[in-house]
Amino acid sequence: MENFSFELVDKARETIDGRVIRTPVLPLCSSKIAPYLPPDCEMFMKLELFQHTGSFKARGALLGVDWLDEARRSRGVAGFSGGNFALALAWAARQSGVSAKVVMSKTADPLRIEGCRELGAEIVLVDGIAAALPELERIEAEEGRRILHPFNDLNMACGAATCGAEFVEDVPDLDVVILPVGGGGLICGMAASIKRHNPDITVIGVEPVGADSLAQSFKSGRPEALAQVDTVADSLGAPMAMADSLALARRHVDELVQIEDAVMTRTMLLMRERLMLLAEPACAASLGTALGPLRSRLAGKKIGVLACGSNISIERYNKYTNGVEMLTVPAA
Amino acid sequence: MENFSFELVDKARETIDGRVIRTPVLPLCSSKIAPYLPPDCEMFMKLELFQHTGSFKARGALLGVDWLDEARRSRGVAGFSGGNFALALAWAARQSGVSAKVVMSKTADPLRIEGCRELGAEIVLVDGIAAALPELERIEAEEGRRILHPFNDLNMACGAATCGAEFVEDVPDLDVVILPVGGGGLICGMAASIKRHNPDITVIGVEPVGADSLAQSFKSGRPEALAQVDTVADSLGAPMAMADSLALARRHVDELVQIEDAVMTRTMLLMRERLMLLAEPACAASLGTALGPLRSRLAGKKIGVLACGSNISIERYNKYTNGVEMLTVPAA
Repeated sequence: MENFSFELVDKARETIDGRVIRTPVLPLCSSKIAPYLPPDCEMFMKLELFQHTGSFKARGALLGVDWLDEARRSRGVAGFSGGNFALALAWAARQSGVSAKVVMSKTADPLRIEGCRELGAEIVLVDGIAAALPELERIEAEEGRRILHPFNDLNMACGAATCGAEFVEDVPDLDVVILPVGGGGLICGMAASIKRHNPDITVIGVEPVGADSLAQSFKSGRPEALAQVDTVADSLGAPMAMADSLALARRHVDELVQIEDAVMTRTMLLMRERLMLLAEPACAASLGTALGPLRSRLAGKKIGVLACGSNISIERYNKYTNGVEMLTVPAA
Repeated sequence: MENFSFELVDKARETIDGRVIRTPVLPLCSSKIAPYLPPDCEMFMKLELFQHTGSFKARGALLGVDWLDEARRSRGVAGFSGGNFALALAWAARQSGVSAKVVMSKTADPLRIEGCRELGAEIVLVDGIAAALPELERIEAEEGRRILHPFNDLNMACGAATCGAEFVEDVPDLDVVILPVGGGGLICGMAASIKRHNPDITVIGVEPVGADSLAQSFKSGRPEALAQVDTVADSLGAPMAMADSLALARRHVDELVQIEDAVMTRTMLLMRERLMLLAEPACAASLGTALGPLRSRLAGKKIGVLACGSNISIERYNKYTNGVEMLTVPAA
């Protein structure tokens, strides 16, 4: 990842042009959502949930498969993921006629597993990440497949950077951008593009309270692994930060904050009732942070938030939001 | 409505500039929705459900209140609606500090009634449209309020025309646009703007099978009233066409087709699972027509569809979709 450069990002943009969706940006100001916004702010949401496979991961996955040489491609690719990267990898591989095998946890949302199947990937279900690693090693050794990493790789950083570049082109004068953090692959790339556009834009990352590996790593200065992950936001539940994306994130991210699971699920209901969007927890993290913990600080600002992706079955959606109350505006 | 002119539409666009949302257009091509599209087509969906008050009605309602003189405004406005126009009228009135009274059917979605209350409107609940008309006459006579019509008025046609103008500006080379039809206020204005941009674009209107007043009126050549309205799409359930919007629609609409309720509800589920959008039935009509009855005819075309608006409670959403199967791709 020391190879990350803006020349490469520019090349990546050319590569993906017309092959990924330039997702629209929604001015978040309608009468339905306005009462919930920080006072006197302007807010814009990039609707990356409408990307191929339903998340930003499609960008980096496409680059990852594209950058392989012919010999590598003929042996196929593989990867482990809670679901969104698996979908992206299956899709990207199919675009290039490459065979894909995805290793997913048995607890992954059935809708995501079904989605990978629909995209023609071979699926291996395992008991969590501990079982996934040996399985991936076996696949690599026995089948010669190239293992693509869900976040800590140059292609993922460059893919995320293309998303950031689009956002600041479409809304050039943002004051603050709030981005969800799982392993850090999204924020390291997006932040780089945002700061390149204007170093004065504040980039804030948001991690679930129970999956704050990047914050811990920022503090210690080296990649930290979590003893356990405890969050409803499976897409943000990376159990560790990793050296490359950490280094890039440290260079460009101004601040990390934490979000409670309850704020995410309450924001999911707000997004359903006021935006008619069915957001998975990770997709609600950025908006939930802006409307919740950071609300007063964001008064008067021009704010960018990201609906990073959403692949969730209605059954799981209902399970997460059952008995939850929609986010409310704090009393003045 | 004989006063409808493109000069007026241009003036309307200036009037609403910065006051309504220029809703984004979504290229409908992601891997999640692609399998359902007509072969070799390109499809674009204008996301008007993200408009103020959650529907296109906000445009025309704003113009309607704006165009009143001071004396009229001081006496307030009123209107009858199944919900989306009521919301729009309440919002538009509040923008100008004008008092609004909305007459709604007791059977209206509670979420819409609550939304009108949140926007500061006075609400009168009545037993259906038969009871609404005398109530509106009473309000007009006793309170001196100006009654604004939900669709058959110059402001509504011009408001819809601004939506059409944006669509063809953002996607200039469409072959076909498919638009939902209730009373005809949306399609008459949008079609005018679309044909002004390019008379070769085919404009197709879609009505519920059980609320086809515009098709009947096209056939007879005069505004027809329905003996009864029978559709799950309350927002498309206008019981009659009216002279002005009918005349404008006849000039610019190429064809009217009908959609079964079941196709709408099945498309609602498709939009939920594949686009993560919670669409009310009317909001699914345009896409449902493109993926359902018109599918084979649309092969190879560049198609515009409209997510015209969505205000629906989760309870009603579940009631409409309970036991329904998601739309599938017809066997080749």
